[in-house]
Amino acid sequence: MVSAVAKPDLHPFDPLTAEEIEVAISIVNKAHGDVLFNVVSLHEPRKAEMTKWLQDSTNLPKPARVADVVVIAPGGKVYDGLIDLQDGKITKWELLEGLQPIITMEELQAVEHVCRKDSKVIEQCEISGIPKEDMHKVYCDPWTIGYDERHGNTIRLQQALMYYRPNPDDCQYAYPLDFCPIYDGEKKAIIGIDIPKVRRPLNKAAPINYHPAAVEAAGGYRTNLKPIDITQPEGVSFEMKGRQLEWQNWKFHIGFNYREGIVFNDISYNDKGTVRPVFYRLSLSEMVVPYGNPEHPHQRKHAFDLGEYGAGYMTNSLSLGCDCKGSIHYLDAEFPSREGGIRTIKNAVCIHEEDAGILFKHTDFRDDSTIVTRARKLIVQQVFTAANYEYAIQWIFHQDGTIQPEIKLTGILNTYAMNPDEDLGGWGTQVYPGVNAQNHQHLFCLRIDANVDGPNNTVFMSDAMPSDAPVGSKENFYGNAFYAKRTKLATTGQAATPYNGDTARTWDICNTNRLHPYSGKPASYKLVSREVPRLMPKEGSLVWKRAGFARNAVHVTKYSDDQLWAAGRHVPQTSGEPSQGIPEWMGDGSESIDNTDVVLWHTFGVVHFPAPEDFPVMPVEPITLILKPRNFFDNNPVMDVPPSYASTPSQVAANNAGVYDAADKISKLAFGKDCCSTGTNGTNGVNGH
Amino acid sequence: MVSAVAKPDLHPFDPLTAEEIEVAISIVNKAHGDVLFNVVSLHEPRKAEMTKWLQDSTNLPKPARVADVVVIAPGGKVYDGLIDLQDGKITKWELLEGLQPIITMEELQAVEHVCRKDSKVIEQCEISGIPKEDMHKVYCDPWTIGYDERHGNTIRLQQALMYYRPNPDDCQYAYPLDFCPIYDGEKKAIIGIDIPKVRRPLNKAAPINYHPAAVEAAGGYRTNLKPIDITQPEGVSFEMKGRQLEWQNWKFHIGFNYREGIVFNDISYNDKGTVRPVFYRLSLSEMVVPYGNPEHPHQRKHAFDLGEYGAGYMTNSLSLGCDCKGSIHYLDAEFPSREGGIRTIKNAVCIHEEDAGILFKHTDFRDDSTIVTRARKLIVQQVFTAANYEYAIQWIFHQDGTIQPEIKLTGILNTYAMNPDEDLGGWGTQVYPGVNAQNHQHLFCLRIDANVDGPNNTVFMSDAMPSDAPVGSKENFYGNAFYAKRTKLATTGQAATPYNGDTARTWDICNTNRLHPYSGKPASYKLVSREVPRLMPKEGSLVWKRAGFARNAVHVTKYSDDQLWAAGRHVPQTSGEPSQGIPEWMGDGSESIDNTDVVLWHTFGVVHFPAPEDFPVMPVEPITLILKPRNFFDNNPVMDVPPSYASTPSQVAANNAGVYDAADKISKLAFGKDCCSTGTNGTNGVNGH
Repeated sequence: MVSAVAKPDLHPFDPLTAEEIEVAISIVNKAHGDVLFNVVSLHEPRKAEMTKWLQDSTNLPKPARVADVVVIAPGGKVYDGLIDLQDGKITKWELLEGLQPIITMEELQAVEHVCRKDSKVIEQCEISGIPKEDMHKVYCDPWTIGYDERHGNTIRLQQALMYYRPNPDDCQYAYPLDFCPIYDGEKKAIIGIDIPKVRRPLNKAAPINYHPAAVEAAGGYRTNLKPIDITQPEGVSFEMKGRQLEWQNWKFHIGFNYREGIVFNDISYNDKGTVRPVFYRLSLSEMVVPYGNPEHPHQRKHAFDLGEYGAGYMTNSLSLGCDCKGSIHYLDAEFPSREGGIRTIKNAVCIHEEDAGILFKHTDFRDDSTIVTRARKLIVQQVFTAANYEYAIQWIFHQDGTIQPEIKLTGILNTYAMNPDEDLGGWGTQVYPGVNAQNHQHLFCLRIDANVDGPNNTVFMSDAMPSDAPVGSKENFYGNAFYAKRTKLATTGQAATPYNGDTARTWDICNTNRLHPYSGKPASYKLVSREVPRLMPKEGSLVWKRAGFARNAVHVTKYSDDQLWAAGRHVPQTSGEPSQGIPEWMGDGSESIDNTDVVLWHTFGVVHFPAPEDFPVMPVEPITLILKPRNFFDNNPVMDVPPSYASTPSQVAANNAGVYDAADKISKLAFGKDCCSTGTNGTNGVNGH
Repeated sequence: MVSAVAKPDLHPFDPLTAEEIEVAISIVNKAHGDVLFNVVSLHEPRKAEMTKWLQDSTNLPKPARVADVVVIAPGGKVYDGLIDLQDGKITKWELLEGLQPIITMEELQAVEHVCRKDSKVIEQCEISGIPKEDMHKVYCDPWTIGYDERHGNTIRLQQALMYYRPNPDDCQYAYPLDFCPIYDGEKKAIIGIDIPKVRRPLNKAAPINYHPAAVEAAGGYRTNLKPIDITQPEGVSFEMKGRQLEWQNWKFHIGFNYREGIVFNDISYNDKGTVRPVFYRLSLSEMVVPYGNPEHPHQRKHAFDLGEYGAGYMTNSLSLGCDCKGSIHYLDAEFPSREGGIRTIKNAVCIHEEDAGILFKHTDFRDDSTIVTRARKLIVQQVFTAANYEYAIQWIFHQDGTIQPEIKLTGILNTYAMNPDEDLGGWGTQVYPGVNAQNHQHLFCLRIDANVDGPNNTVFMSDAMPSDAPVGSKENFYGNAFYAKRTKLATTGQAATPYNGDTARTWDICNTNRLHPYSGKPASYKLVSREVPRLMPKEGSLVWKRAGFARNAVHVTKYSDDQLWAAGRHVPQTSGEPSQGIPEWMGDGSESIDNTDVVLWHTFGVVHFPAPEDFPVMPVEPITLILKPRNFFDNNPVMDVPPSYASTPSQVAANNAGVYDAADKISKLAFGKDCCSTGTNGTNGVNGH
């Protein structure tokens, strides 16, 4: 029997190492022969055991290292397994019926090659206007089929979104083809092609591209951007112990898995010496990108990028001076290859600090005594590529206890063929001649495993509301009264709540057992999220059924181990009947979530009506939200951040004797003789104080 | 007769110079004797004349320099005047009845001194627990009275929000007093005191402060923040010609006035050689901060900070290395003093660039060929202090044609006294023992004088909507169809529209005379704004009447010279009967705003339910929105921004021969031997490409 003793320096939340993955693979191969590995990932420690260990890690034994394994055996048989890496035992091995595991990069890569050689695909290419000798110029973006009722979920399928590149360096999204082959992953063959009634031959427009040769041909790069150099001569302000990070009172563990990418665990804030837990686990749990064109087979385009492909599997290898600037720390990621090897993604996560502008400022108008303090933020980032599209996921930690997930959308629009002067029926936009970019949404589901001053939390919905009392009444004579209407979400049914922009709706994750000494209100983290459109696919629609998490802005469930991913564990080819994930975990809606261990699921996102500005590559569109401490700290927790400048009334009265002046001496005036020298002691300019 | 020949290098949009202000004052003094100057500001050129001049500035004469003057003559008589500075003539001199002009800093400064000597105020202080020998420890934040029906608007009044400081350096907001003297600016005397029925003696809590001595006493500053140095060794990427700025295809004039602070004029974007107008004028037009406590006299706290005090008059003098970092350009501001001198605010506006993260990125999953380009932004900023509170107004210009106003709220909460265990009735929060911070909103009104490819624009409201066709129907079988429902706002009445977060509502300022060659849609700028709570004061309330602009998220009016400020020209002590500003300009709602010169007014903001974290000084709370070009450019307008790194499939196939690599060589790994050296040629770290 193969076994691996866990390295003593591994944290129980650490992703499996390459060695551990190899051990797991070896155990499985020995027991079950040659199988294809879709997943070999950390089976996270059970919360009950882990919580105890976190509280007494010096005395208690570390939770065991367990591998969560999903394989496809010959004949397309799918197994879920658990491997105890300490004693080398398979503790679970379960055949799945009617479920398809996540699609791996290798599975995606396979489709294009098969398409190019398939005679029926070649025939369709010829109909589109591509001679068969040009099949090497035909490309496809393979997507899981999503769900197609004609095919069900027993066969492992992908749909091949077809494109053409006149030249290998051309942007294929300018040359979409109008038909869609269906690929059988077991047979490694095209088993059918969806062909539209109205044919749309190959686009004849000139190529458009953003690569240097194309930009040079179009007039060249702009030359009027002067460099901005960001340096940290004394190094960074954060410390890493393995994957545990400490920075500005924050402490947390940074995990990473194939599915969600970055996962934070055991997030706490050191409040003047008291380490206060905030979140047990925080991650992007799922997402869905429904497209709005009703014609078959476009309804199949509603990618669950995390559940179907994996934000970890698709993550980019980041590079210094490109994806972030300054002093950067990187973490690598290690995954199994499908055949049982190791695939390493170098620099999968980058960690760095940025100056964040003014943290706080106040001037007394009487005497201009003033304080101005600059803020710092810490950013933990990954970027993943989902075929045409890029998602830069930034987790921003602020000094004041705020956590701000920010997602930057970029990359290339998914496009479809159109005929000249075709009426797109309002479902899309011609972004380039012959290129239809369809309406779509990007909806993300944030999973917040709350731990606000301990595991027993309660979620309230808060709406700003005018007083009920009419203008002129004794209680509200001038009509200005308003208050925060707080609604306790006591059951999973009550907690399924939509957004309301009009009332500036927020959701407060409260510890009702810990009331603030001044305000009398419970310690809480407030979810402030303002990009919360409704799910556009209608109630009862395919997307509505499959993406149950997107039916509301917020759901709350009682914590349960393994309820990690909002659309369920195995997402590809689910029909949504019954709905997996959150709707399943909500049960009949009666379960109490009052003052217990709860998980808040928040769906947010954007509606994207494409425009030509988005093509052929889209300038970043950011979307953000914050989790903010309220009635948590005794008072402003960042008063001890050193100011740039501070003077008091008595100092001003004494001609500024004794003022605190730590203004950045590196900054310079933009113009004039001292503007552009390179020395480290720039002449400081006019000072307003 | 005194006259001034305009300096030939002055731009017609330039604020009045100190010399011009002096000339205007001198002309007025000569004609009307000793008066107090509330305003001597640029009377902006009439748009018709100015538009012609902008189109042919080499041949046409410059529009005349005219001073807009508001004075208070003996007896409290208020006059509006216009002075032609070229020929030294008063072209308008109008006595105002029942209107009060803006409050100046000098008027605000006067109140505290009068309060300290007023016997009735001293008596109230004694009742509060302050001995009369401590009256030098009594402070007041003077506010205009807003509107109080007992006093009307013929007497110029302020209300004095009273505080106590045990020590001059203490934070007075921890010691609010419960009564409110009324100050008559003409008599320079207290004419009454509003005394609550329930008395609230002076707070006995220990001081809390954020100044260095207090922080040192509480344990000192944190020492674990390492410096981040931002340098621009080759200088900045923008050019200034007077107050005209050019940067990354943008060109605009930066004005500044007492009222709105920063004003942009003649904003255009150079689209591959064609200068395309975008906005004729862009500014923050007005704001209102209603407080939600219904008890008299708290309803009077609903500051119109721009109309009543002036974002220009209250603006801070900024300082290098404090309010921004890098290479900074400053603009000063010059105002009249009340007595007829000159008041200069050094560094009233700062202008600088910042790195803005990823501009766009795409990786081909087939071969990892990739492009990553970093973004730059330009920020034009001012910070103003409104008694307790600070507003940092940032106007951010992006390379892709997006303009992003961002307001950072900081400073100190307005506070009121409370008794121990007093029930605050949901209208406020005890943020510190004995300190009640009341619920309030910050609502801002952005004025967008649209000029999208010319003056004739039309505003459409856009809502993301599911198809009407039911799930299962032929038109929407899978239920996924959705589209942008566009509603033309054809009249001022139709244009008064609320926000809808559910449909991700936006407003598009369109030039329907210029359809995009690909999309067929009109060239437009889209207003994307997500922080748009309703006005909490009820319909018919005092605030609702006075702040007509805040009744809807958007209003659109037909352009008219002098309709600049959303709550009207003279705001202090208006009753709202009739409502000034926008409701007045909308008329009966029937005026056509279809394909004509229009102004869009957008009210946005936050609801603030205070928490102890906001006290004694509030960490910045940002609020932002964007104006984004859609169907305006042929395609992505930033493809010519030099990338950090770019490789194509053919280059990858050729072992990366010929790739474009301009990655920032200054960035370093956070840890390891090269992490913290200070040389300019840091060893570049691992590279993910």
